[in-house]
Amino acid sequence: MNNNLIVAQSGGPTAAINSSLAGVCSAAVKSPQIGQVYGSVHGIQGVIKDQFIEFTDWDDTALDRLAKTPAMYLGSCRFKLPEPSEDEELYKTIFDRFESMHIGYFIYIGGNDSMDTVVKLSAYAKAHNKQISIAGVPKTIDNDLIITDHTPGFGSAAKYVANTVREVAYDTYIYDTKSVTIIEIMGRDAGWLTTASALARTKSSPAPHLIYLPEVAFSKDNFIEDVKKNLERYKNIVVAVSEGIHDKSGNYISADTTYSDRFGHSQLSGAGRILENLVKDRLGVKVRSIELNVLQRCAGHIVSKTDFTEAFAQGEYAVTHSLTGASGFMSAIRRISDSPYRTELFAVDVADVANKAKPVPESFINEYGNNVTKSAVDYLTPLIQGEAAADFENGVVDYLPVLHLVHHRI
Amino acid sequence: MNNNLIVAQSGGPTAAINSSLAGVCSAAVKSPQIGQVYGSVHGIQGVIKDQFIEFTDWDDTALDRLAKTPAMYLGSCRFKLPEPSEDEELYKTIFDRFESMHIGYFIYIGGNDSMDTVVKLSAYAKAHNKQISIAGVPKTIDNDLIITDHTPGFGSAAKYVANTVREVAYDTYIYDTKSVTIIEIMGRDAGWLTTASALARTKSSPAPHLIYLPEVAFSKDNFIEDVKKNLERYKNIVVAVSEGIHDKSGNYISADTTYSDRFGHSQLSGAGRILENLVKDRLGVKVRSIELNVLQRCAGHIVSKTDFTEAFAQGEYAVTHSLTGASGFMSAIRRISDSPYRTELFAVDVADVANKAKPVPESFINEYGNNVTKSAVDYLTPLIQGEAAADFENGVVDYLPVLHLVHHRI
Repeated sequence: MNNNLIVAQSGGPTAAINSSLAGVCSAAVKSPQIGQVYGSVHGIQGVIKDQFIEFTDWDDTALDRLAKTPAMYLGSCRFKLPEPSEDEELYKTIFDRFESMHIGYFIYIGGNDSMDTVVKLSAYAKAHNKQISIAGVPKTIDNDLIITDHTPGFGSAAKYVANTVREVAYDTYIYDTKSVTIIEIMGRDAGWLTTASALARTKSSPAPHLIYLPEVAFSKDNFIEDVKKNLERYKNIVVAVSEGIHDKSGNYISADTTYSDRFGHSQLSGAGRILENLVKDRLGVKVRSIELNVLQRCAGHIVSKTDFTEAFAQGEYAVTHSLTGASGFMSAIRRISDSPYRTELFAVDVADVANKAKPVPESFINEYGNNVTKSAVDYLTPLIQGEAAADFENGVVDYLPVLHLVHHRI
Repeated sequence: MNNNLIVAQSGGPTAAINSSLAGVCSAAVKSPQIGQVYGSVHGIQGVIKDQFIEFTDWDDTALDRLAKTPAMYLGSCRFKLPEPSEDEELYKTIFDRFESMHIGYFIYIGGNDSMDTVVKLSAYAKAHNKQISIAGVPKTIDNDLIITDHTPGFGSAAKYVANTVREVAYDTYIYDTKSVTIIEIMGRDAGWLTTASALARTKSSPAPHLIYLPEVAFSKDNFIEDVKKNLERYKNIVVAVSEGIHDKSGNYISADTTYSDRFGHSQLSGAGRILENLVKDRLGVKVRSIELNVLQRCAGHIVSKTDFTEAFAQGEYAVTHSLTGASGFMSAIRRISDSPYRTELFAVDVADVANKAKPVPESFINEYGNNVTKSAVDYLTPLIQGEAAADFENGVVDYLPVLHLVHHRI
């Protein structure tokens, strides 16, 4: 009887992805219908290479500590699964492994590229009458998956961005001289995370004064005019920009677009630095750029409790929905209302989600393309609510020890 | 009777400097010997320009919120007070203001340059028989003041560095490919804050694998050899570098202009970015650099309770010691033991402290100059202990509103 489960993680890390992993393991360990619970090391590659750990005997205390640990406990991969027609052998290896390990459930936690793997594996399973449920749990700080209201990992990254932009703003206010501070935020094609900078604002702290997203064609001239106008009114201004801002011809503002990764994504670095130099050249004002870098996706010490809880629940849901016999789905979240914030989980056909992207909608962006609207703030606010207290030991956050590769022969 | 008090802040911001301000105000407001308590806006310049706010009626709740707010509530200045011989008029302006406002106590919270102001003002007061006590309270994330064991603001910045390096390390471990991550930490002349990266280590997470300080002449060749050696043993290595690392001739690594952007402009970048390009060129391995930037000095959401408490106490001490008739001193801290951590406050002649700097001692650096010793860890560990919980409102840290310039005519 194939009633064992494999869970794996893939794509970029987030502060909440291990909460989804803990949710999967928690539901699986507690289900009488599921036997052994395995974690595949380095995503689907662990299945191919036969590298697993066991979660079967993890209790709630261990799973809670797992949930609070950022990055990816099981390790990730950036492996684009070929079509079966391109490499039938690979599919045979994977499904033979499933068979020999008596796997009835495979759950993949990841972003857009990972959902592509879920699509391919579930289609193959169906076409070849394999008795296995293949499901996805979303995660991405980019929040760019369609159909689902938002993605686990985004709320925590958004909370980090909001808090950090507020703290940087306070840092800028102290001198009695004009200054411009440019904060570069992750987001290659979608500006969701940059919109979250708007949550930094208070009655006395208007920062960020300007917000630029990849959804709007970026004009250096307009940008300089925007900065000038704001400097007439404010002493210290803060500008939030997505790493992926580009001009109307699609050219990235960042310096180096000549190199691409394996998925064909341009490697970006330095939109903030480019704009810093532009402001210095054109306006001669004191200017600094700050790149939030990986800190916005790995800061487990300041995660959103809402995100953390939802990430866990979506992991659980993938298991319970798989137990109904469903396959080829991704767990998703539907928003019922903003205030009070109410949501429900549902399953979406993963083929409808994979390889598509959701940009920030026009209604969230102001008419000048240099700020976000109240609708954006209303959408974002519930997602960063609550603090999931980190555990500290000896003054530093206490995370689960890093997994050293353990190879269990089954 | 001159029994009013002015407090001011100067230099770069820290997450704990408002805790010292709150300590000064708390002691002053509670003392029956002190009348009005004024805050000078933008350091000594507020005294010159007649710009003050009043703290006299602030209660403990308000002061507690002030203490928890990062950056500088009163605003800062970068004003080097000239010698009296260079600008006697300026001194007359300052001391006339003190006289007209019946000031008996002036307390300046700041770093090395600010202590120079305390030296000059207290010497002038003594030479001209002015009945005013002039005192300093130290603050600097650089921890480079002499005589005092450590400086308020350093512990919180060190805690931020330790936590962030650990979280970044977790982020680096997820892929099954070799990688080098270089984290650039503040510290132009002294590497104290970079030493704190060592506190990120756990039994399973050896990051940072290498640590480079400005106290040791930096060799690019040795650095590349160090990285190579570590890559033989570890898959993902993390390197912590001070922004101020320089070669044996004193040339800053960050001044290296070998690298230019695609327009041929020399890239003015940090030491981390220079080393990133060096590793890419020489070793061809996946490499990323991260500049912690101002985040390490303004992250009020993750401050050290020890630092926070000591910063407050040193503010209080400056007031109570001034009340004994002392002038021209800086409050300082003496360490009695590491474990248990015990300290006592004392006063030091500010002329002995100003314009001098304390480097990281040789005993804290290993023989190869690429790591720190157990002595360094023993020294640092007590300083980051405890968490001073931030207050959150609507998902974001709730700080005191930014001071809009208020001009009280006295």
